[in-house]
Amino acid sequence: MDPAAVVFPRTVEEVQAVVRACAANGAAIVPSGGRTGLAGAATATRGEVVLSLEKMHRVLAVDTAARTLRCEPGVTLQRVHEVAAEHGLLYPIDYASKGSAHIGGSLATNAGGVKVLRYGLTRDWVLGLRAVVASGACLDLGGALIKNNTGYDLRQLFIGAEGTLGVIVEITLRLCRPPADTRVALCAVADDAAVLALFARVRSSSLVLSAFEFLDDGCLRHVLAYRGGAAPFADPSPRYVLIEVEVPVPGAAAAAQTQEDLELCLGDAQEAGEIRDALLAASQAQARGLWALREDISESLHRHTPHKGDIALPVARVAEFLAVWRPAVAARLPGIEALCFGHIGDGNLHLNLLRPADLELPVFLDRVHAFDDETYGLVQRCGGSISAEHGVGLLKRSHLHYSRTPEELAIFRGIKAALDPTDLFNPGKIF
Amino acid sequence: MDPAAVVFPRTVEEVQAVVRACAANGAAIVPSGGRTGLAGAATATRGEVVLSLEKMHRVLAVDTAARTLRCEPGVTLQRVHEVAAEHGLLYPIDYASKGSAHIGGSLATNAGGVKVLRYGLTRDWVLGLRAVVASGACLDLGGALIKNNTGYDLRQLFIGAEGTLGVIVEITLRLCRPPADTRVALCAVADDAAVLALFARVRSSSLVLSAFEFLDDGCLRHVLAYRGGAAPFADPSPRYVLIEVEVPVPGAAAAAQTQEDLELCLGDAQEAGEIRDALLAASQAQARGLWALREDISESLHRHTPHKGDIALPVARVAEFLAVWRPAVAARLPGIEALCFGHIGDGNLHLNLLRPADLELPVFLDRVHAFDDETYGLVQRCGGSISAEHGVGLLKRSHLHYSRTPEELAIFRGIKAALDPTDLFNPGKIF
Repeated sequence: MDPAAVVFPRTVEEVQAVVRACAANGAAIVPSGGRTGLAGAATATRGEVVLSLEKMHRVLAVDTAARTLRCEPGVTLQRVHEVAAEHGLLYPIDYASKGSAHIGGSLATNAGGVKVLRYGLTRDWVLGLRAVVASGACLDLGGALIKNNTGYDLRQLFIGAEGTLGVIVEITLRLCRPPADTRVALCAVADDAAVLALFARVRSSSLVLSAFEFLDDGCLRHVLAYRGGAAPFADPSPRYVLIEVEVPVPGAAAAAQTQEDLELCLGDAQEAGEIRDALLAASQAQARGLWALREDISESLHRHTPHKGDIALPVARVAEFLAVWRPAVAARLPGIEALCFGHIGDGNLHLNLLRPADLELPVFLDRVHAFDDETYGLVQRCGGSISAEHGVGLLKRSHLHYSRTPEELAIFRGIKAALDPTDLFNPGKIF
Repeated sequence: MDPAAVVFPRTVEEVQAVVRACAANGAAIVPSGGRTGLAGAATATRGEVVLSLEKMHRVLAVDTAARTLRCEPGVTLQRVHEVAAEHGLLYPIDYASKGSAHIGGSLATNAGGVKVLRYGLTRDWVLGLRAVVASGACLDLGGALIKNNTGYDLRQLFIGAEGTLGVIVEITLRLCRPPADTRVALCAVADDAAVLALFARVRSSSLVLSAFEFLDDGCLRHVLAYRGGAAPFADPSPRYVLIEVEVPVPGAAAAAQTQEDLELCLGDAQEAGEIRDALLAASQAQARGLWALREDISESLHRHTPHKGDIALPVARVAEFLAVWRPAVAARLPGIEALCFGHIGDGNLHLNLLRPADLELPVFLDRVHAFDDETYGLVQRCGGSISAEHGVGLLKRSHLHYSRTPEELAIFRGIKAALDPTDLFNPGKIF
C-alpha cells in the first residue's frame, strides 16, 4: 500500500501543522530521515503520511567553548562531521552510510557504528533535543544545560524510539576534541577464538583502542570481487581484524611511541599464535585503504540480496555463538553462504546470508526467515540482543520476544500510550 | 508521621517479597539508600514502609576486559572507587558525600559531582541495572551488553526517577582507565565574570580539564572558621577557582609538560587580569589540601542550617544570573548571608542562604522559602533548571513548574502510571 502523502516540512511550525492536521483527520505519520535504516522503521505500509525531514537540514549553531553543535534533523552525519572539523572538534559517531544517513534518524535508532568501543552510542552524545508530540506541542528537552535532574529524562525516551513517540525536530550534540592522530592495522587471524584473544590483549595494553572491527574471509572476497583491488595478504586467512588506536597527545614523539607500542603488541600476538600476519598502515592513504575493506562490505554484498542480522552478545560469548551458528547454517541452509562482520569489541555481529544466484528470491526469503528463530533462539541462550544497533522497526517486531519479556512489552505499550495515545506516530513499529 | 516500618532486605527475592506484601496490603514504599540526598526523596512522610538497601552491599563482579563492575545498590560510592582502583580502573563519578552515599541512590538521583565536565553524569556510566517493579517482577535491563536497541531504553527511566518507578536491586557500572596523573591549582579571582573568562581560557587550551570548581570568599571563610587551617593566599579575594587537569599519558616528561602548560595558561590569565594569584599544588598532599577547601564547604555550613539551592544554567548565563541574584538577596533578605559554590564549568551552582544565629529557624525558613520563587523565576528567565543534580524529591516539587511544562508533567504521570499504576513507590515525590 502506498503512502497517503509524502510531506517535506521546512520548519518546526510546519511539522506541528502536519501533526495537527494528521491527528485531526485520523491519518498516521511515519517520520523519515535518510532512509538508510535496515529495520524498516521508516517504511509506510498502511497508507500513512510520510513526514520527511530532508528539507530541515540546517546547522544552527556551533559553540566551541561548550563543545556543542545544534542542528535540524535532516543534516547528514557526514555534514555534522565536516562542520565539527571546521571548528577543530569531533562528533565521534561514525558509520558507513554517513553520507546519506540523517542525524535525526541516527537519534531515532540510537545508532552505533565503528567507534562505539571508544565513544559509545549516539545516546551518549545527545545533550538535548526538541520533539513534536501528538498534541502538536513541541517539547524542549534540553540542549543548553549539562545538568537537569527534574523528573524523568524524556530526551532518552525519544532516542531509540524509532519515530514511535513523536518527531525529533532539533538536536544539540556534544562534540569532543579529535584524537591527535591514529594508527591502523589489519591482522590476519586463524579463527574466532583468536580474534577474541587478540581483543583482550589489545584492550588490556596501554594502547587507546578506538576500533576493533572484524570480518571473515568471505566478506573480504566479496569486497575485492565487487570493486577490485589487491588482497591485503599473500595468503587468505579465515578471519581479519582491523585495529585502530589513537595517538593520545600531539607530536611526532607520541606518534612514534604509539606506532612502536602497536608493533610490539602485534608482535606479541603473533608469537602467542593469535595472529598470522599484520599490516600496519604507513600513511593516511593506506589507513583509508584498510578501512575501506571493512566499510565497503555492505555495498559489496548488496547484489546478493543478503538477509541481514544485527545481533549483540556479551563479548565473552561471541566465539561460543559463532561455533554453533556457522555449522547450523551449513546444516540447515545448504548452498547459502553465511558471512559475518562487525564491531566485535562491542559484541556486535552483523550476520549475512547471501542468496545464491540460482535461487528465486521468495524461496530464499522463506528459507532464511524460517531460520531466524534458530538464530534468535541461540542469541537468547547466549544472553544477547536480537538488535544491537539497527533497531526493531518492522522487520524484527515478530522476534522481539527473544529480547524483551511480556512485562517489558506491557511497559512499552504504557509509555507509548502516555506519549501517543491515538497511535499517531509510526503505528505497528517495534511492538 | 513516622514510617510504618523500616525493612532491610538482603536479596533481590526479599525485595520482591516486600514489594508484593506492600502491594497486597496497600502500603506504599520509600526506597532508601545512604540518605545523603538533599531533596527529601528518601523521606517517608505518609506512614510508608521504608525499604533500606543498606544490607545489599556486595560487589558481585569486576570484569577488567569489559571494564565493568557489577554490584548491589547498597555499596557506597567510595567502595566502588576502591574496588575499581584495586583493578587498575576508575569509576569517575565523585562527590563529597561518597563515604556514605550508596551507588543505588546515585543512580536514583543521576548524581553529578566534581568531574562532570570531564566524565558526565551517573547516567553516562550505567551499562545496566535490574529493578523490581510494582508487580514484584524483576526487570533485567542490561549489563552484559554494550548495545541493545530493542525498544525504549527503560534503564534510562529508572536513572533519575528518585525511586518513583521501582527499586534498583543490581547495577552494572562502566569503568575507565584512570588518568596517568593530575595537577591541581587554586586561583584567586576578582569577580564572577573573571571566573567565566578563566573557564573559557582553560577550556580552549590544550589542557585536559577534569574539574573547574568555584567558591566565593564566604565559603572559604566558613571552611577555615569551622575546621581551622591557614588561608591559601595572604589577601582574601572575592572568588576562588579550583582547577584540576589530567596528565594525558604516563611518564615524568608528560607530567612536566602538563605542569608547564598549566603554569603558562595561568600566567596568561594573570596578565589578562582574569586571576589575581594562583597556587599550584607541588605534591599530592597539597593537591588534597586544595580539594579539601572545596569539599569541606557543605559540612562547614551545616551548623548555620543553610537553605540550599542546586541550580543549573547555560554556562554563558551564569554571570548574568549572579549579577541579579546576589543584590536581590541583599535587598530582600537583609542580614542573611548568601554563599555560592559549585561546578561552574557545568553551569551548576549551589546557592546557600545561612541562618543568622539570632534568627529563629521557623522565621528563617518562612523568609527564605518566600524568596524561592524569586530565585527560581530568575533561573527560568535565564533558561536554567531548578535542580541540576540533587533531584526534586519533596522539597522542590512545588517549584517543578519553573522547569517543566504542563505537557511534560502530564507525560510524567503517564509514565508513572505505566510502571506503577497504584502509586506504590515513593508517592508524592517529584510531581
